[in-house]
Amino acid sequence: MMNYKKYQRQYFLPPYPCMKWAEKDYVDKAPVWCSVDLRDGNQALVVPMTLEQKIGFFKLLCKVGFKEIEVGFPAASETEYEFLRTLIEQDLIPDDVTIQVLTQAREHIIRKTFAALEGAKQAIVHVYNSTSVSQREQVFHKSKEEILKIAVDGAELLKKLADETEGNFRFEYSPESFTGTEPEYALEVCNAVLDVWQPTAEKKAIINLPVTVQHSMPHVYASQIEYMCENLKYRENVIVSLHPHNDRGCGVADTEMGLLAGADRVEGTLFGNGERTGNVDVVTLAMNMYSQGVDPKMDFSNMPEICEAYEKFTGMKVNERSPYAGALVFAAFSGSHQDAIAKGMNYRVENDPEHWTVPYLPIDPTDVSRNYDADVIRINSQSGKGGVGYILEHNFGLNLPPKMREAMGYAAKDASDHQNKELMPEEIFEIFKKEFEGITAPYNITEVHFKQVDGITAEVHTEYQGEKQVLYATGNGRLNAVSNALKKGYGLEYSLVTYQEHALEQSSSSRAIAYVGLQKPDGTLAWGAGVDPDIIRASIDALLTAINNSVA
Amino acid sequence: MMNYKKYQRQYFLPPYPCMKWAEKDYVDKAPVWCSVDLRDGNQALVVPMTLEQKIGFFKLLCKVGFKEIEVGFPAASETEYEFLRTLIEQDLIPDDVTIQVLTQAREHIIRKTFAALEGAKQAIVHVYNSTSVSQREQVFHKSKEEILKIAVDGAELLKKLADETEGNFRFEYSPESFTGTEPEYALEVCNAVLDVWQPTAEKKAIINLPVTVQHSMPHVYASQIEYMCENLKYRENVIVSLHPHNDRGCGVADTEMGLLAGADRVEGTLFGNGERTGNVDVVTLAMNMYSQGVDPKMDFSNMPEICEAYEKFTGMKVNERSPYAGALVFAAFSGSHQDAIAKGMNYRVENDPEHWTVPYLPIDPTDVSRNYDADVIRINSQSGKGGVGYILEHNFGLNLPPKMREAMGYAAKDASDHQNKELMPEEIFEIFKKEFEGITAPYNITEVHFKQVDGITAEVHTEYQGEKQVLYATGNGRLNAVSNALKKGYGLEYSLVTYQEHALEQSSSSRAIAYVGLQKPDGTLAWGAGVDPDIIRASIDALLTAINNSVA
Repeated sequence: MMNYKKYQRQYFLPPYPCMKWAEKDYVDKAPVWCSVDLRDGNQALVVPMTLEQKIGFFKLLCKVGFKEIEVGFPAASETEYEFLRTLIEQDLIPDDVTIQVLTQAREHIIRKTFAALEGAKQAIVHVYNSTSVSQREQVFHKSKEEILKIAVDGAELLKKLADETEGNFRFEYSPESFTGTEPEYALEVCNAVLDVWQPTAEKKAIINLPVTVQHSMPHVYASQIEYMCENLKYRENVIVSLHPHNDRGCGVADTEMGLLAGADRVEGTLFGNGERTGNVDVVTLAMNMYSQGVDPKMDFSNMPEICEAYEKFTGMKVNERSPYAGALVFAAFSGSHQDAIAKGMNYRVENDPEHWTVPYLPIDPTDVSRNYDADVIRINSQSGKGGVGYILEHNFGLNLPPKMREAMGYAAKDASDHQNKELMPEEIFEIFKKEFEGITAPYNITEVHFKQVDGITAEVHTEYQGEKQVLYATGNGRLNAVSNALKKGYGLEYSLVTYQEHALEQSSSSRAIAYVGLQKPDGTLAWGAGVDPDIIRASIDALLTAINNSVA
Repeated sequence: MMNYKKYQRQYFLPPYPCMKWAEKDYVDKAPVWCSVDLRDGNQALVVPMTLEQKIGFFKLLCKVGFKEIEVGFPAASETEYEFLRTLIEQDLIPDDVTIQVLTQAREHIIRKTFAALEGAKQAIVHVYNSTSVSQREQVFHKSKEEILKIAVDGAELLKKLADETEGNFRFEYSPESFTGTEPEYALEVCNAVLDVWQPTAEKKAIINLPVTVQHSMPHVYASQIEYMCENLKYRENVIVSLHPHNDRGCGVADTEMGLLAGADRVEGTLFGNGERTGNVDVVTLAMNMYSQGVDPKMDFSNMPEICEAYEKFTGMKVNERSPYAGALVFAAFSGSHQDAIAKGMNYRVENDPEHWTVPYLPIDPTDVSRNYDADVIRINSQSGKGGVGYILEHNFGLNLPPKMREAMGYAAKDASDHQNKELMPEEIFEIFKKEFEGITAPYNITEVHFKQVDGITAEVHTEYQGEKQVLYATGNGRLNAVSNALKKGYGLEYSLVTYQEHALEQSSSSRAIAYVGLQKPDGTLAWGAGVDPDIIRASIDALLTAINNSVA
């Protein structure tokens, strides 16, 4: 049994309630997006990326729309240094993209970082030191004053080296482990750093407030962000940045609430790659905005291609349930969901509404290059008439009468239940043909001739248990006459309650399909379908199958 | 490019601000947990579970501590019906566990559901109908009054059939698609249902308010929940239940904030299995409470076993970054994180603090049967001295001097960087031996004899580039004497700045390891180690390797 008394809450509330952010209910403007895939993401891979993989990933990040990309910790490893040099020397950085490099607030590391940046047109130098209670006590054995001095010394060295180095440098400071730091102290450290940098409207500074480890609920983080935003000096010249991790599964909520609380910028990764439970997932954040009618300033319109590239570069898999991107996130197996989706799609066709409101689909899957047939309506033992009807209609052009959809739904559900597997569209079509087409026993019709005098007279050549007969009857139509002949000849009792037909192809020589529904004396229904270029032939085949199903 | 104008927000705010919940900062009490793994979870599997798998999963759910388990929609499929009958007839339901069955608010389905429950000692009958604007318009083509009547008719039939059927039945109602429903209307429907049921203290009713599709931010959902909790009739006899899905990646936040807002109960699944992006993950919710010192009333102490069983039953994989459970969620590859963790662990040993505060580890991995060596400190090109030192200490009993850890860290990082792979502990040990043990070229020592007169005199038999010599020198100790002999004989310039040794095993015949650090005239350090039952021999071997490394 687990001992919960071993734990206590490790976060600190702001000195006064900071909940004004909660008056807003959605994020109405895209933040500045910064990718940390190549640093925080890469550092969390069992096998970090090679130089070639990093270059490929960098190009992917530019393509989806990142304008700020943290490319590594060049003073920390040979590969990261080499990657940065390659980007600069091979001129791989688009003019509208700013690279960012990370460095600890330690002199030799900062110096090596600036050396690695030589020749970069523009860059963000991101310096950090850890400020939390536990790190001060356990790792650094330093007082608050000493920890603040590390930050200030680092900030001063950044300023000095930036002046001495050619290129356009912006500065970012992170009080690392912010979420384990007293907000008043984090504020003091950040303001001390800002006093060094003296940010201006032309040269803003970035203050990044990471959820290094998620210790609190998201509204607590948002209140910390609001407190910082209200009390940071030079606020109008400071870009407040968020960098949430996901230990409590709340990285997305932390970020969105942090944005409401005043933050301007987000550091995250594609599909939430990153240390431990990952960094916040920028795909989810951007698509969340998109789904509420807000321009995310990112382009995930080719999600399958992005997923594939991500998987190739990182060796990770996009989780099947990863919002907007996973293989199963648009899938509806449940009958009632399929039915509602099919009706919602029809509603769109008929009413052309301005906004997307299809039930059970938060966005239109085709917006991210997914499709209805393969990704949405999927048939297994949980499915029903709506889904099966949709598949038959969209894949095979069959528009079954509503009550026949129900019968077909049960047939497919039973098949999946017994075979214990998902049914592909072809398999569903096979079930339809087996259950509702071409059943010629026990009754069969071998020949039919019509005479049109007063109404229609049918001459029906039949076979039943090896015995052939020729039956005659009249009716107000051809099918009716055939039906009357069979009823009379064999003493069958049913009412023909449904008859529908439609063309299967678009040409003049096209085949038609007819559907016939019979109601038996006990009230239950039996169904048949027939396909033929001749609609009369098709309808007689449908009737025959329906009769045979009714006596099965 | 994606067209964000196709979307608008689909949720509705309560008629007045409901944000009192935000005055609380954490969930201080476990809710009633209800598993929907066997229904909502099962329905989302490409291949739903077989009867045997469901029975196995049911036992797992009981074992981790669920007291309420939704076992299916027995009127919807043969397998679900059969599963329910098996649970009842084979007496597989523990006395303290209540099963729950789902039914639409339709007469024939409700009747079939009660028939399936025959012989159950106690059960929750969960009836639902969809209430959202889009479903009313697109799927049901019904007015608000008509939709309300479906709910009320269902509630009445439940009451009637429960009276007629033997067993102890409780009722649950869900306004399905609650998050797309106007809160005032959802309230009206729920209150109408409660008016039928007239819940009492002895027979409470459950009102379940699902996030069928996640349309809003979590604080909006919490405000909707607070509104419902404040305005539901019979509130003291109503259990307010949450059932969040995860379309916006915020299922956990929705649930936790909903609990602060007054809810009493949570429906979710293990590892967030469920339709599309999944249901809310009960593992994360429970462990989030646990990590804040709150008893979650669930037992995930054997997480690897639970993961394995889950994967076997569902055919799904627990995601590598799934909070508290994934393969990578305790992993630290980064050098600075490893260093902090190693220091935090030492701090625990030395200070025995009451609460867990180790940096970068939200909980102690051993609480969920994970271990430090295999799961936490993992070495690749991102790693450094802290992690490598930890592995050598914990796996092989080597306690390297701090500066030697740094050198060993670089050696391991380089090896991983060049081989482009993670290093296993054995490989790290091999690197240590290759780099810091038994290097006998260019200098070698073949024999050493000591005389103890005034201080120590060493007679050192050496070999250098094929040439043998016998060198003599005195020193204040044996190692010092040997060092002096070599310095004098070969004109070597270094200072012996570090010497440490410790036993490698616990017995009296144990081997010792000695570490020697030399500072060269340029200020850099060179290191060697030696292992021998004789500590003098070990230290001479260490010195020799350090000298050879210093001239390499």
